[in-house]
Amino acid sequence: MNSPFQNYCVDLGARSYNIHIESGCLNYIGQQMTSLFGKASRCQIVSNEIVAPLYAETVKTSLESAGWSVTMFILPDGETYKNVEQWTLMMDALMASKLSRNEPIIALGGGVVGDMTGFAASCYRRGIPFIQIPTTVLAQVDSSVGGKTAINHPHGKNMIGAFYQPKLVWIDPNVLNTLAPREVRAGLAEVIKYGLIRDSAFFDWLKEHISGLLTLDVSIISEAILRSCAHKAEVVMADETEQGQRALLNLGHTFGHAIESMTHYTQYLHGEGVAIGTVMAARLSEQLGHAPVGTEEAVVNIFKAAELPTEVPHFSAEAWLDAMGHDKKNVGSLIRYILLSGIGDAFIAEDVTDKDIEKLIQSFAN
Amino acid sequence: MNSPFQNYCVDLGARSYNIHIESGCLNYIGQQMTSLFGKASRCQIVSNEIVAPLYAETVKTSLESAGWSVTMFILPDGETYKNVEQWTLMMDALMASKLSRNEPIIALGGGVVGDMTGFAASCYRRGIPFIQIPTTVLAQVDSSVGGKTAINHPHGKNMIGAFYQPKLVWIDPNVLNTLAPREVRAGLAEVIKYGLIRDSAFFDWLKEHISGLLTLDVSIISEAILRSCAHKAEVVMADETEQGQRALLNLGHTFGHAIESMTHYTQYLHGEGVAIGTVMAARLSEQLGHAPVGTEEAVVNIFKAAELPTEVPHFSAEAWLDAMGHDKKNVGSLIRYILLSGIGDAFIAEDVTDKDIEKLIQSFAN
Repeated sequence: MNSPFQNYCVDLGARSYNIHIESGCLNYIGQQMTSLFGKASRCQIVSNEIVAPLYAETVKTSLESAGWSVTMFILPDGETYKNVEQWTLMMDALMASKLSRNEPIIALGGGVVGDMTGFAASCYRRGIPFIQIPTTVLAQVDSSVGGKTAINHPHGKNMIGAFYQPKLVWIDPNVLNTLAPREVRAGLAEVIKYGLIRDSAFFDWLKEHISGLLTLDVSIISEAILRSCAHKAEVVMADETEQGQRALLNLGHTFGHAIESMTHYTQYLHGEGVAIGTVMAARLSEQLGHAPVGTEEAVVNIFKAAELPTEVPHFSAEAWLDAMGHDKKNVGSLIRYILLSGIGDAFIAEDVTDKDIEKLIQSFAN
Repeated sequence: MNSPFQNYCVDLGARSYNIHIESGCLNYIGQQMTSLFGKASRCQIVSNEIVAPLYAETVKTSLESAGWSVTMFILPDGETYKNVEQWTLMMDALMASKLSRNEPIIALGGGVVGDMTGFAASCYRRGIPFIQIPTTVLAQVDSSVGGKTAINHPHGKNMIGAFYQPKLVWIDPNVLNTLAPREVRAGLAEVIKYGLIRDSAFFDWLKEHISGLLTLDVSIISEAILRSCAHKAEVVMADETEQGQRALLNLGHTFGHAIESMTHYTQYLHGEGVAIGTVMAARLSEQLGHAPVGTEEAVVNIFKAAELPTEVPHFSAEAWLDAMGHDKKNVGSLIRYILLSGIGDAFIAEDVTDKDIEKLIQSFAN
């Protein structure tokens, strides 16, 4: 990158917003907020117990210097807390803060913080402005853009939520330096996904720059974030509420979620599940004659280079189908899979049968 | 009315929907749903313990005859239950029903059922289709149209919700015959409101037909419902998310909510609070020189004819301001009131001072 920052506008008419990527930008979120809202007033920061000690003070100081009156709500860390109980506590905190309909809430953290804060923002007084400051690779390249917000229900992930767009996504790649390397690698799975589903040139670029990505070289990671956000935004602009093409972003996710669920969310990070799930989707694409031979190998190679798992864990075909939400009572209903026609080209397959899945699972058992 | 039914299309682009008003139409909601969705699948009816024994079987039978597979969720009756706990139970029932993203939920009941069901529909899987079958005057003329959905928080009414439009509003005036007369009268307060804020001819028509309205003469009440829905829809089409003019619909509501709150929701129905609140707004409009002398008298006369209360209960000015959410710490912040320039013409006043309110309250104490 030649310029010190990158901006990308997500064009959704009245709900348009900017994604701003800049090393060190955490320090002047206050000025940016004042210019976005016209004047400083009250706001609430939502973060979690891991991120808050690292970055909340920086954000708060910047906001207060720009005249904002700041309250804070801290979540426990982890997907376990993305539930109705914690969301209710967030609503209580918002009520206590007395934020009006025009005063913003700021999500400072990873995907869980962003998803929960976004849903709270969508509901409180039927919707208040909402700012994303993502602090993980996964959140910076994927979950902070696009307006999918949610909490989990005991019987399903992300079952309670809203499509609700932020007013600004403010990305500082510097904050990634405090992440565990395993978290960085898991996030890269989603970056690679964009190459696989819609941009083979980006896929090649990622192969070349994988070591710079792993070491968080600022210009390389910034470029990867920008290209990822641009891809995500393009898909969202074409299909905001996932009526069709937006589903392509779920490459590897149907298998990946099943892996996470069958191992009770203890063994694999989300991005790791997605990496393995993508290998499975690639093999299925080859088996069904959609993708040329070698597609799976290319997928495995890039994930291995990114030090991500590619070995498929052993479960029966029935366990896989169950975990993927196959409805046995609903005869003839098929699960929708995202498959590849090749590197850089994905499509939605509605005609994959249980037999196809059994054959796939069998092929990994050998 | 000459035709046996009336249709009004609420034009909100991709979120457009029809309001259908017809005596007896409850009996063929099934056919209508199948034609709306292309084919019958699963759906869930939400009602309450008062309405369900009267009408749920009719609706269910009609749906099942048209091929729908129907589940049912019954709420306890009353505003008390418009809370997070009941909403959580609704989400559990939706999860158990396994409704997909394209399968609808149907609100059969008054404002509480409609508000809660609408909010549940907006959240479950980030939004499923939602049908309103309103069964009270208030719901038929006001709350079922416009997409304001919500539940209450212990510290404020309707604080958690969404702007989420139904796919159809299906109004059968016959169901009003099982309402208590006091409920009918309370609903008429909102009908009269439309005349006051934007249609003096409708106001005159209401004065002439007040006895037919009170006895629920089918052609008169149908006409009043249609005109009310059309007014509501026009306002909503111009300002879906209440950035401006939609606030005019709150004529009498700032005072009315305060009356309900100060009497702990035990003494006045919502419409009764609105009637008294509208009398107060009319006098305030005269006192501030916005409305001609006689405006308050005309307002009092029509509410008296509709057998609605018009006597302002006695509380201190401080209690009124507190109950209206006056923020003492926020110096200079003023409550927004809806005032009248005359019968048929309302506006938003941002410059009403605490002193003006003290004078108003004082004038009712004499």
